[in-house]
Amino acid sequence: MIEKKLIRVNLKNGEISVTSSEKEYATLGGRAFTSTIISKEVTPDCHPLGPYNKLVIAPGLISGTSFSSSNRLSVGGKSPLTGGIKESNAGGDCAIKLGRMGIKGIIIEDIVPEEEGFKILYISPDEVRLDEAGDIVGLNVYDSRAKLHERYGRKAALMIIGRAGEFRMPIAKIVLTDKDGLPGRSAGRGGMGAVMGSKRLKAIVIDNKGIDLFKGNELLSQTVKEYAKLIIENPSMGERYPYYGTAGNLTFINNMTGLPTRNFSQGQYDKIENISGEKMFEVQSERKGKARIPHACMPGCLVRCSKEYVDSEGKLLCQSFEYETLCLMGSNLDVDDLDEIARMNYYSDDIGFDTMDSGVALGVLSEAGVIPFGDIEGYKDALRQVGQNTPLGRLVGAGAEICGKVYGIRRTPAVRGQGIPAYDPRFCKGLGVTYATSPMGADHTAGTTLFLTMDHKDKDIQVEGSKQIQRTCTMIDALGVCFITLKLATANIDLLEDMTEIVTGDKLSIDSLTDQAEQILKIEREFNEGAGFSKKSNVLPEFFRDEPVIPSDGRFDVDKEAIQNIYG
Amino acid sequence: MIEKKLIRVNLKNGEISVTSSEKEYATLGGRAFTSTIISKEVTPDCHPLGPYNKLVIAPGLISGTSFSSSNRLSVGGKSPLTGGIKESNAGGDCAIKLGRMGIKGIIIEDIVPEEEGFKILYISPDEVRLDEAGDIVGLNVYDSRAKLHERYGRKAALMIIGRAGEFRMPIAKIVLTDKDGLPGRSAGRGGMGAVMGSKRLKAIVIDNKGIDLFKGNELLSQTVKEYAKLIIENPSMGERYPYYGTAGNLTFINNMTGLPTRNFSQGQYDKIENISGEKMFEVQSERKGKARIPHACMPGCLVRCSKEYVDSEGKLLCQSFEYETLCLMGSNLDVDDLDEIARMNYYSDDIGFDTMDSGVALGVLSEAGVIPFGDIEGYKDALRQVGQNTPLGRLVGAGAEICGKVYGIRRTPAVRGQGIPAYDPRFCKGLGVTYATSPMGADHTAGTTLFLTMDHKDKDIQVEGSKQIQRTCTMIDALGVCFITLKLATANIDLLEDMTEIVTGDKLSIDSLTDQAEQILKIEREFNEGAGFSKKSNVLPEFFRDEPVIPSDGRFDVDKEAIQNIYG
Repeated sequence: MIEKKLIRVNLKNGEISVTSSEKEYATLGGRAFTSTIISKEVTPDCHPLGPYNKLVIAPGLISGTSFSSSNRLSVGGKSPLTGGIKESNAGGDCAIKLGRMGIKGIIIEDIVPEEEGFKILYISPDEVRLDEAGDIVGLNVYDSRAKLHERYGRKAALMIIGRAGEFRMPIAKIVLTDKDGLPGRSAGRGGMGAVMGSKRLKAIVIDNKGIDLFKGNELLSQTVKEYAKLIIENPSMGERYPYYGTAGNLTFINNMTGLPTRNFSQGQYDKIENISGEKMFEVQSERKGKARIPHACMPGCLVRCSKEYVDSEGKLLCQSFEYETLCLMGSNLDVDDLDEIARMNYYSDDIGFDTMDSGVALGVLSEAGVIPFGDIEGYKDALRQVGQNTPLGRLVGAGAEICGKVYGIRRTPAVRGQGIPAYDPRFCKGLGVTYATSPMGADHTAGTTLFLTMDHKDKDIQVEGSKQIQRTCTMIDALGVCFITLKLATANIDLLEDMTEIVTGDKLSIDSLTDQAEQILKIEREFNEGAGFSKKSNVLPEFFRDEPVIPSDGRFDVDKEAIQNIYG
Repeated sequence: MIEKKLIRVNLKNGEISVTSSEKEYATLGGRAFTSTIISKEVTPDCHPLGPYNKLVIAPGLISGTSFSSSNRLSVGGKSPLTGGIKESNAGGDCAIKLGRMGIKGIIIEDIVPEEEGFKILYISPDEVRLDEAGDIVGLNVYDSRAKLHERYGRKAALMIIGRAGEFRMPIAKIVLTDKDGLPGRSAGRGGMGAVMGSKRLKAIVIDNKGIDLFKGNELLSQTVKEYAKLIIENPSMGERYPYYGTAGNLTFINNMTGLPTRNFSQGQYDKIENISGEKMFEVQSERKGKARIPHACMPGCLVRCSKEYVDSEGKLLCQSFEYETLCLMGSNLDVDDLDEIARMNYYSDDIGFDTMDSGVALGVLSEAGVIPFGDIEGYKDALRQVGQNTPLGRLVGAGAEICGKVYGIRRTPAVRGQGIPAYDPRFCKGLGVTYATSPMGADHTAGTTLFLTMDHKDKDIQVEGSKQIQRTCTMIDALGVCFITLKLATANIDLLEDMTEIVTGDKLSIDSLTDQAEQILKIEREFNEGAGFSKKSNVLPEFFRDEPVIPSDGRFDVDKEAIQNIYG
């Protein structure tokens, strides 16, 4: 068992402490840790960009090991987008390095005084310190990455904000380096990049200097191998994801009339074959460029769903071309050109803002007539403007809900400040319940009932389904397990239980993990209540009830009161 | 006693009904009527710009008579700005004409189908009908006024939206004609103009054709005269308001360090003498232009606080130059040129948006560095852009809170979506309690403790003071009595009681009026709870607690829990 350490950084006075983590946190990782700290230490009604908010970072409970697909990093705080509690997690190489150093979590408090400018937090086994950001300030993510690796060495894992984060934009994200040191993974949702920017923290550099406290653990090696075998042999994990990535789901969701198209007015895209995962694979295979297929974002991940994408010149446009981006910047905008969608993805990664909320925002702007549907140049220009700090760029950087308010648009697909992900709630109604009720706002990773074997259209069983899967998602967010592997991981819960014993010294049963997840959801809800939201705020936009998701006649018809009373 | 009529208009199918008003509404006027209808007929979680919201209009209970200063018109609906219930009332000549025709209220439902375009609602004693708006669509308020008077005759009272309302901007207002037929009065707060615009209703034309159902009522004449004498003899009513208007309060509030200056960072303005009521009177006296001093907005009002303002060429710039505008577009922006502030006021009246929320929004944009403080041309340009539908114009038209979110500004003076009026809550803490707790959001007319004889800095008595004055304000909003005369009117409550008997046939005692006000506040709170707000949303921005209002050391320090528990 490894003694876990807690890093606490006060940016105002520069005080840094590295202490043994309290015993009460022993079983808390990832989202369980971030939400617990926020619940205990952050006043719910504080301004999300003020000195009283905290940025809390934690690797999953079993992160740091090579257990496949379990090295997610959770980033939490009060969200400037939703006004509620937020946890956003990402793959990449940060969590594994923190885990190998035995770091339980990082709590970042207050704000660097204005006269001192932006800082960089450097973390290694020997030292935790604050450095001047210097000439990295004002740079976007790709250039920041290059300079940071120059300065701190190529092996350092990085968390970076771009100009969107420096500008404190509500949908600013934190970009993480992947296992190859490229800035391809994002803690994308809820504006955690704005919280980091408001604190004047430009980057976090994590260098474990080769240290791995788990090294030589035989039991661990065995468990890792056992799970690896399961992944490789699993048809959906081993056969589709490595080649098509999450983009492989486009055709499937489209067939189910759940693919948001033209600002969620339709559920099927007539040009689907131009943007599908199969098409992407075909294009990239032809180009024989630098894109690696399959490609893992986290060290040790055998799913390798991350999809690099190169343009016709062989230039790498993105490290992770995902289903959600392809839909929300593709079908949702009537853009069917993979290269152009990849370019839009690039702007999001480089300037540092959420591809999902910006995609939904652009759809709302098209609904408002600001940019015609399908106007690729118009969309790219608007996305570039995010980095140029123009009023239009600011609007896109504020996300879909604010765009809808500013332009007086009723057909705004957002819940409590956050744009709805790329799964129409009318085809999978349990997801609609999750969008409405999750403490995280409209977030598919907070509870996709698609993982459950149930009738996704039967309105009477969705509330229970959503409740169940929200609990499971909270559990895997705490463990650091990737959402993509949820079904496989929970089907082999004994291995996860074993892993908790290996890393904490105490075996956590599925029951205690479930209890923990319920407790976390409870404190998250309490935080949101303290931030001013009653359970009556748990509603989907009314147009989902009024309008069918063409070409099906599906409407969202789950009983409103049942949704609001999901937790009593 | 006059039989009261209710007008109900369904814009979707064009159905119009004029019926006898239900007995249960007999004692309800103004805000009491609008909030009751909204509470009964509007689902709290509906989209404010969708078909399920209603626009409800009602003259005050005693409006229609010549009882001085009692012809306010209430406009209510779910607010696109606050997301909660809203009532915004204004003077002018609409309420008296509706009252004289015996109209209790107008309930406007649903939306004109898109293919039919904007409509005009015409109301006369003979007929209620919907007309095509035709060539008035796309015009601003002044041009619309001229065309409407051309079309419907000079005597018609008008309610008009400008381009801001057509664009459904969250701070769009409804402009009302004053007793001279000029568009000088506004139902300004909370975006009722956007609700009207979302329904594709460009204007409401009210022509009573000389009918006055109160004519010849001897008892009424006597009561009116008795009150008139009280107003004329009252030093603050009769001596200051007719000459300096509400602008006369600038020096007073400035002396108390309560005048928002440079985005609420200071409470005193060093160039106060350039924008004071006294200065305005001096300038207008010298110009000997068309500006009438004194000038009443409502027929029969003897306070005559409305202040016309002409520029150096004698061109009329505004019909009502108010304290709030002079502060929020003046000291709050470091603009000390009366002519220029009047021009900004003109843009607000013509394009049709709230001078208060736009003034606070410009202050936030200056805090963000978008327009430097004091940059008059920059401010005017931004305000003109509201009518040009540019992204910056859209931002200003969305109000202060959204500007603060979009630019990541912590020092945003707003509560639950609405910009804070021109009274700093640190010098008059009871007002801060009202801003935080009123169902109307940050609105001084919802309960100014300045009207109460109390220590405005003693933190322990503000919650009770706010509660008391919120009740009184609700009562006068229901009666149709102007806020300016609150103290005088309530000091002569027997006359108000007599008036209720004259107009309803039943004498309402002060106790029953108070009970009614409490009931109205209760249903308004319940509506907001239904819209998703818990009482924990009743908070002032934290910077009012952290920063003193320079040059005083006053901070807002009323106990947070006591505020949230104001109503248990």
